[in-house]
Amino acid sequence: MPGLGSQALCQLLAAFGSPEKIYSASRQRLRDVLPDAQASAVAAGPVAEHQALIAAWLQQQGNHLVTLADASYPQPLLDIPNPPPLLYAKGRLELLNMPSIAVVGSRNASPQGEKNAEEFSAALSRQGLCIVSGMALGIDGAAHQGALKAGGATIAVVGTGLDIVYPARHRHLAHQIAEHGLIISEFALGTPSRAQNFPRRNRIISGLSQGCLVVEANLQSGSLITARLAVEQGREVFAIPGSIHSPMAKGCHQLIKQGAKLVDSMQDILDEMKIAPQSVADSPSLEQPVDSEHDPLLEALGYDPVSLDVLAARSGLTTERLSAMLLVLELEGKLTSLPGGRFQRIA
Amino acid sequence: MPGLGSQALCQLLAAFGSPEKIYSASRQRLRDVLPDAQASAVAAGPVAEHQALIAAWLQQQGNHLVTLADASYPQPLLDIPNPPPLLYAKGRLELLNMPSIAVVGSRNASPQGEKNAEEFSAALSRQGLCIVSGMALGIDGAAHQGALKAGGATIAVVGTGLDIVYPARHRHLAHQIAEHGLIISEFALGTPSRAQNFPRRNRIISGLSQGCLVVEANLQSGSLITARLAVEQGREVFAIPGSIHSPMAKGCHQLIKQGAKLVDSMQDILDEMKIAPQSVADSPSLEQPVDSEHDPLLEALGYDPVSLDVLAARSGLTTERLSAMLLVLELEGKLTSLPGGRFQRIA
Repeated sequence: MPGLGSQALCQLLAAFGSPEKIYSASRQRLRDVLPDAQASAVAAGPVAEHQALIAAWLQQQGNHLVTLADASYPQPLLDIPNPPPLLYAKGRLELLNMPSIAVVGSRNASPQGEKNAEEFSAALSRQGLCIVSGMALGIDGAAHQGALKAGGATIAVVGTGLDIVYPARHRHLAHQIAEHGLIISEFALGTPSRAQNFPRRNRIISGLSQGCLVVEANLQSGSLITARLAVEQGREVFAIPGSIHSPMAKGCHQLIKQGAKLVDSMQDILDEMKIAPQSVADSPSLEQPVDSEHDPLLEALGYDPVSLDVLAARSGLTTERLSAMLLVLELEGKLTSLPGGRFQRIA
Repeated sequence: MPGLGSQALCQLLAAFGSPEKIYSASRQRLRDVLPDAQASAVAAGPVAEHQALIAAWLQQQGNHLVTLADASYPQPLLDIPNPPPLLYAKGRLELLNMPSIAVVGSRNASPQGEKNAEEFSAALSRQGLCIVSGMALGIDGAAHQGALKAGGATIAVVGTGLDIVYPARHRHLAHQIAEHGLIISEFALGTPSRAQNFPRRNRIISGLSQGCLVVEANLQSGSLITARLAVEQGREVFAIPGSIHSPMAKGCHQLIKQGAKLVDSMQDILDEMKIAPQSVADSPSLEQPVDSEHDPLLEALGYDPVSLDVLAARSGLTTERLSAMLLVLELEGKLTSLPGGRFQRIA
């Protein structure tokens, strides 16, 4: 019903007890709960045109409407202060009640940030966690991709009507999620992308999940709102740190200062969420391999550009011997040679 | 006196009250406190040879011997469980009672880690804090350098006798610290570098300081011992985060998980230590300049290598226009061009 949002619906349910009783209530009684215009609209009864639209949408394969009264309504959302009374859903409805973790972050993420999002999501989904995110560009998209590539479960909570794909660049991803995972929205069909709807949407991302991992976020990122809502909902918040010189790590650092758990391996999350890891074969470690940690030349190199002379001084090796060793490491993809004869470790 | 360490000295002082009373005590009474051999040595009185050695050393300019009874004995050390009864000191004794912060980390630090150590130390020393460290290679050395370059105060606490310079590569640094700062040790003259003495030494680094900043540390770093001692002594521990893929950040991440304060700007430390910042002119910010944070091309670039094509897709700019803009950014030192036509942001 146009103009009647989740909050008004919840107020009506609280006052009258069921949809049937709402529709049989007098306009006068409805006005005790709602402003005049909304009360009149409800008293006039359902709009046939909207009912037809929804009915047609529900005919399409995989589309569902889930209400607070349904068994498939996600249990965790019942714990949050303002649960959505109605969820439009497209895909595998059973994912709504899996153990879940939100994986979120900035839209303008760094390539390393997206890689981290994908790797953590793949590894966590192999541990049986459903990856919940917002299908935005950047970290969100990478999180869904990671779960899909690992053959795991993923839920996209979007801020538009389910008949609209936003952002348009994620059309293919949206189809993949609808096929192998689940897309949900509390917004009516046809609702376009509106800035004010995204923070509302974020409470569902965090509310569906037992924990919330922020992978990379600048200080303006909407994912910091998701993290705040997660705290308010009593969910554990995790954040991945980064270089203090990267603006994309600042949001995560701020969260850690405020009490979020610093995460540098998947195990940190599993420990906190009390999930026993699956067998080793199923869960490739995100840690550095031990041998590269102890290669003295890589240690001398560090992660910043270094000249051959400096490296010779640090390692005590001749430049001839160094050149040969560096070439091997470059071929192994562990370093890159930079202009001016400098070298930089990249793995 | 050979074989008589700080702990035995403290036991004697606790039992007898003063050096004079220790020397006038009977061997029998000394044996109530010390093992036989040590009791006999003390009962035999001071060894002239050692007294002469110390007297000669004290003749050299800047050399001092500081006891628990001296006014210049550092107040903060009186609070720790096992204060050194005797400190050999070389340099500006007045630094012992300045507000101080320990800045420590791995010997095999990355170049960026050393740069961070130097920049934080310079900035903190400009705020009136004395930089305390262990004069080791890597982070420690960079911390002292930073303070010296900023014209600030610095104390090196070493694990050998003060007539020995360890590590030898820091001979020049040791001379600079002795001239502009202070070097101290609780170990007798002539004591060589011994592995077991360094953890003991670390309790003085943390004990002298109101806080302890770990800049970069692998999981084997002795600086993690310093941080643990700092916690036991009731000092605040700070740690700088880094990439989860860098082994040199793992020690800092572990500390943060255990409760250390994550630090990504000097202000984090000043806030915690309740120090009001000096005037802006005196304290260059360690933060990213605002304009580079908002350059959309730098944001598109991120901190990892990217090809021109990817950058064109990310930025929506033509490759011609991109090439010109990238050249400007490279000349400004904000990015570097890599082999294979890729680009990487470096500032």
